[in-house]
Amino acid sequence: MGSVFGRIFTVTTWGESHGKGVGVVIDGCPAGLELSEADIQPYMNRRRPGQSKFSTPRNEADEVEILSGVFEGRTTGTPISMTVMNRTQRSADYSEIASYYRPGHADFTFDAKYGFRDYRGGGRSSGRETIARVAAGAVAAKILSSLGITVTAYTRSVGDIEISTFDRDEIMNNRLYMPDKAAAEKAEAYLEELMAQKNSAGGVVECIISGMPAGVGETVFDKLDAELAKAVFSIGAVKGFEIGEGMKAARLTGLEDNDGFEYKDGRLKKTSNHAGGIMGGMSDGSDIILRAAFKATPSVASEQRTVNKNGENITISVKGRHDPIIVPRAVVVVECMTAVTVCDMLLRNMTSRMDRIEKFYK
Amino acid sequence: MGSVFGRIFTVTTWGESHGKGVGVVIDGCPAGLELSEADIQPYMNRRRPGQSKFSTPRNEADEVEILSGVFEGRTTGTPISMTVMNRTQRSADYSEIASYYRPGHADFTFDAKYGFRDYRGGGRSSGRETIARVAAGAVAAKILSSLGITVTAYTRSVGDIEISTFDRDEIMNNRLYMPDKAAAEKAEAYLEELMAQKNSAGGVVECIISGMPAGVGETVFDKLDAELAKAVFSIGAVKGFEIGEGMKAARLTGLEDNDGFEYKDGRLKKTSNHAGGIMGGMSDGSDIILRAAFKATPSVASEQRTVNKNGENITISVKGRHDPIIVPRAVVVVECMTAVTVCDMLLRNMTSRMDRIEKFYK
Amino acid sequence: MGSVFGRIFTVTTWGESHGKGVGVVIDGCPAGLELSEADIQPYMNRRRPGQSKFSTPRNEADEVEILSGVFEGRTTGTPISMTVMNRTQRSADYSEIASYYRPGHADFTFDAKYGFRDYRGGGRSSGRETIARVAAGAVAAKILSSLGITVTAYTRSVGDIEISTFDRDEIMNNRLYMPDKAAAEKAEAYLEELMAQKNSAGGVVECIISGMPAGVGETVFDKLDAELAKAVFSIGAVKGFEIGEGMKAARLTGLEDNDGFEYKDGRLKKTSNHAGGIMGGMSDGSDIILRAAFKATPSVASEQRTVNKNGENITISVKGRHDPIIVPRAVVVVECMTAVTVCDMLLRNMTSRMDRIEKFYK
Amino acid sequence: MGSVFGRIFTVTTWGESHGKGVGVVIDGCPAGLELSEADIQPYMNRRRPGQSKFSTPRNEADEVEILSGVFEGRTTGTPISMTVMNRTQRSADYSEIASYYRPGHADFTFDAKYGFRDYRGGGRSSGRETIARVAAGAVAAKILSSLGITVTAYTRSVGDIEISTFDRDEIMNNRLYMPDKAAAEKAEAYLEELMAQKNSAGGVVECIISGMPAGVGETVFDKLDAELAKAVFSIGAVKGFEIGEGMKAARLTGLEDNDGFEYKDGRLKKTSNHAGGIMGGMSDGSDIILRAAFKATPSVASEQRTVNKNGENITISVKGRHDPIIVPRAVVVVECMTAVTVCDMLLRNMTSRMDRIEKFYK
Repeated sequence: MGSVFGRIFTVTTWGESHGKGVGVVIDGCPAGLELSEADIQPYMNRRRPGQSKFSTPRNEADEVEILSGVFEGRTTGTPISMTVMNRTQRSADYSEIASYYRPGHADFTFDAKYGFRDYRGGGRSSGRETIARVAAGAVAAKILSSLGITVTAYTRSVGDIEISTFDRDEIMNNRLYMPDKAAAEKAEAYLEELMAQKNSAGGVVECIISGMPAGVGETVFDKLDAELAKAVFSIGAVKGFEIGEGMKAARLTGLEDNDGFEYKDGRLKKTSNHAGGIMGGMSDGSDIILRAAFKATPSVASEQRTVNKNGENITISVKGRHDPIIVPRAVVVVECMTAVTVCDMLLRNMTSRMDRIEKFYK
Repeated sequence: MGSVFGRIFTVTTWGESHGKGVGVVIDGCPAGLELSEADIQPYMNRRRPGQSKFSTPRNEADEVEILSGVFEGRTTGTPISMTVMNRTQRSADYSEIASYYRPGHADFTFDAKYGFRDYRGGGRSSGRETIARVAAGAVAAKILSSLGITVTAYTRSVGDIEISTFDRDEIMNNRLYMPDKAAAEKAEAYLEELMAQKNSAGGVVECIISGMPAGVGETVFDKLDAELAKAVFSIGAVKGFEIGEGMKAARLTGLEDNDGFEYKDGRLKKTSNHAGGIMGGMSDGSDIILRAAFKATPSVASEQRTVNKNGENITISVKGRHDPIIVPRAVVVVECMTAVTVCDMLLRNMTSRMDRIEKFYK
Repeated sequence: MGSVFGRIFTVTTWGESHGKGVGVVIDGCPAGLELSEADIQPYMNRRRPGQSKFSTPRNEADEVEILSGVFEGRTTGTPISMTVMNRTQRSADYSEIASYYRPGHADFTFDAKYGFRDYRGGGRSSGRETIARVAAGAVAAKILSSLGITVTAYTRSVGDIEISTFDRDEIMNNRLYMPDKAAAEKAEAYLEELMAQKNSAGGVVECIISGMPAGVGETVFDKLDAELAKAVFSIGAVKGFEIGEGMKAARLTGLEDNDGFEYKDGRLKKTSNHAGGIMGGMSDGSDIILRAAFKATPSVASEQRTVNKNGENITISVKGRHDPIIVPRAVVVVECMTAVTVCDMLLRNMTSRMDRIEKFYK
Repeated sequence: MGSVFGRIFTVTTWGESHGKGVGVVIDGCPAGLELSEADIQPYMNRRRPGQSKFSTPRNEADEVEILSGVFEGRTTGTPISMTVMNRTQRSADYSEIASYYRPGHADFTFDAKYGFRDYRGGGRSSGRETIARVAAGAVAAKILSSLGITVTAYTRSVGDIEISTFDRDEIMNNRLYMPDKAAAEKAEAYLEELMAQKNSAGGVVECIISGMPAGVGETVFDKLDAELAKAVFSIGAVKGFEIGEGMKAARLTGLEDNDGFEYKDGRLKKTSNHAGGIMGGMSDGSDIILRAAFKATPSVASEQRTVNKNGENITISVKGRHDPIIVPRAVVVVECMTAVTVCDMLLRNMTSRMDRIEKFYK
């Protein structure tokens, strides 16, 4: 259970790291959207391994294929099934990894829940699962785009190194997806240092939603921020989530934190955006700003303490090359989960008023 | 839409601040739980206004009544309907508050979504809505208790004042529900200062779940931490949410953050709990630790800029007495949303393994 | 579990026959609908006991009260809570009824599922539960009405006595809600005969939905007819459900059953309506026609065989006066479950096409 | 929307008749079930075209492949993705069929809902969609089997020809899956006659669930019979659904229809089974008996009236060979939708009682 997301734009994912492939079915995508693999592949490429020295060298093309729901170049309103077949999974010897619990991984909890686990490369809990999220997000982003809404994620910090400028064009220019060239260079040096120490780093991904109409989001439980919190927190390795001022809001006074209103050039605006674009659980028309903290890659080559199946305390060092940081590849995943959530909430929002419903059906 | 929460233990809430009352229906509560108003009222009392000088003097008894689903002192397995009728709402003159948008409130977004709003005391977006959550949480907590699980929330910080010790017995001893007497005293002084300045404060609520079996939580989207993130972020005024190291995890290295495993006295344990009790979206058997940042009360008596219905930029100061801080009364709300979520996830977890299902039906 | 219905227009009901009352919460009702108790009470009155000699003399006013979600005469978009408090439940002696399983009732199955039951008047499985459905249906019907859609249910047959004419004005003129005066008279005579024999009758309720736009209903599982089937079959005592030709469709050939298309006066029409207004799970613009078969009232004064708690085979005769037929009072329940379902499906239908979504958000 | 079914055992299907393939993702299948393609293929074969002269000669192997969720021969508790790729779809000339609405098909309603349609072989509304249901049903049936529950469907009638004996061994022996050899022979003769007349027939599928524990099914809306009604009515061409006495229950008196209880050989039994195994929406421990009426195949070679895209009234005759009856191939589909539903309801039932939950977690 737990692999279905969304109320109207409903995303169901499947697949394991070293199984036959991974995939997603989107039910509830509106009909008439122009769509082909060319819309989705660029998103897959941003997430793909082997892109830089900070990502695993596993050489997967991660080629997406649309199997249903598109006819003559447009979505038909019926489920869109997309797959990325695994090409390079090898029948390696996993007997060692199968015999113990890797620290910081889900090995132990999967065994506790299911009685056993697909231990090959992390199975279902592998980062490879996020391919399916990205494919769904690419479709959602295209819908949002046709409504004038854009979603942009980037790396805000790596370890203690945080961006101090925001240059949107720089995001795609460095391997860490940071909108600050100087910070990216510092972060790269820090990561190389950690790699040399057989250690790893975490970081923060930030995401901005621009162009949102006001009033999107439901009351009480299904607030827009609550749905975003769930969506982003469901990405592996996320340990913190913020909107606007985030955790810092706890330290501000009411007068510091409140956003005033004003009419400017005939339009209603907020005088600031401490709230991060969401008030009372609904979009307020300003940019929505969210952040997610990712912990460091748990797989490190240094020695760590754990236990094995024989009930012994042992010391292990995780074999193979692993990303020294998850964050750069997680950027597009955060962007895509945000897009999926916002898309679903926009569709849910269409039934909020009788006058609009009457107009729709007239 | 948006007032229904949970998959099996399903909570539906209703009611406005100055309407006839507020209430909740729990569908999916197991049969055979001993339950009466006496189990719920103590939770209501912790949330009630008028408890201290830091909460509004509105004098509501907030008396809960069970209308269905309990027979001869035990739950029957059918929906439990509970109400708290509003006693003191007055037909005050709300024409002024109806005429403008209060900064930091949901007035504007409700209008944007629904076309108009119940402006009396905030209507559905009032903190009074949380009464229903607390009533549901009290039931969930009783179920958890029978399974050996406890949920304990408290105030971790007020503005910049954070606890530096943890004395569980102290929590109920001070008006701010802080487990550190000295910090509570400092915080009280800080709040009095802010009140004198017609200002308000925010803070952080922390919550500990003890006694959780390992393996509870679903994979991919419905991870235990993702569901908790949604549950807690759906409480008004929350701007940040953390599990374990939280946002700080982004600054730690893999070697600092990873929790090792060991057998100690014949039992499998983690050697640390940076993860905050959840790995791969499932409980790992350690204490689950979460935190929520609450922004400062937006209603302050100082002057603020906003707009009115006539399209004019105006200056207002919010009338009436308001809590200078939401946090102390939010403590029980966080505890209750946590209990509801954990209860639902425990019930969802029961179908994870064929051997257990076969044993159940044998 | 099981007391929540609908995806967008979400109805949650609660209450037992002899508890404090019954009620319903509607989440997802659009804002701006004019609504008051005066819209709902007439529906309640059609369902109320004591209306004729064919219904139980229990004298309940069944007065509905709206507790939330309506402000200044209009729905606010937030949950509408409605209650009907029980006035006449007495602390009668139920020890006998508690001691055995009534044939044809849910006594045994409730015990099997929950371990015990609220035996007072059938508890949650009582027909009194349908009050909540009717209140929700009245709201749904008002929404449909503003979209030009009407839902009309009536009694099609009582035992073997079926209508042979259809006079819409007659429906409200006889106590059996039959649109055929002569059939109604025959049916009344039949029922009196059965009452004299301490026996009871079943019958068929038919329902017509007029004014439906074409294309409403989802593909595959959530077909409009599938959702209607669930909605109507969830009413106690229903044993069969049909759309259009229904069970008889199995006996027709393709040429007999197919509906052709034609343009007539410039409009696309079907040349017949064997399908009953639904093709491929979606409304086709014709009247939607459905039928539900209700079994006879299980409570009869004649002697029947059953068992008691002591494990003995006994003979009982159900005490008290009971409706000799459920059908007339079920007419409004079928109408209301149909209205709730159609309303929900109309709201779900609004996101089917990109062009309409773009127009909506422009 | 509408291609997701179930609450815990959740089935999502995708695919079109002449697209790349069809498939299904099952989320919520318990871990530890032994499963391979060999469990599923026999079900696929029962549904496959080209099996007899009464089914289309389209020569598809309908080979099922499991892509995820199974490891070392057992389900892992994560989503099971299964596909059947289309092998024989040809890029035929569909321009004619694209230009008009076939009577009795979903061509018109798909256009009304989505603005256009995948017209190749019926697209998503093709019977080929049921492949995915059958694959899911095969998994559900295996789960049920391990709990001692069997689901058996067969053809009860073809046109007016109904079975008069029940010989379980005969079901798989004739091409119509009738448990009565003589009836099957008569029905075959009738179908040959209709084929000669370029006409088609409908019929009734009956299904028996044996071995059900009592008390499975939820109260009020999610009754077991209501869920079965939706599940079976969601199969294309179904126009009527019955449990136990079905529509005939409306003609029986209470004394005729009520099932008494008795202790026999120390076990509680019903003295009859008019209810068809479900009382108050829950299984009563007897066999559950349901029936579905299928209309005749709408595609007939005879001339029929319809309209084309130019707004003209035309006469068409559907080209190609089509099954003269849907029923025999629908038998396994009814069986599978029943299995999926019962499996989901059994899993939902596990949280009904505190004592069982406490025992589970002890």
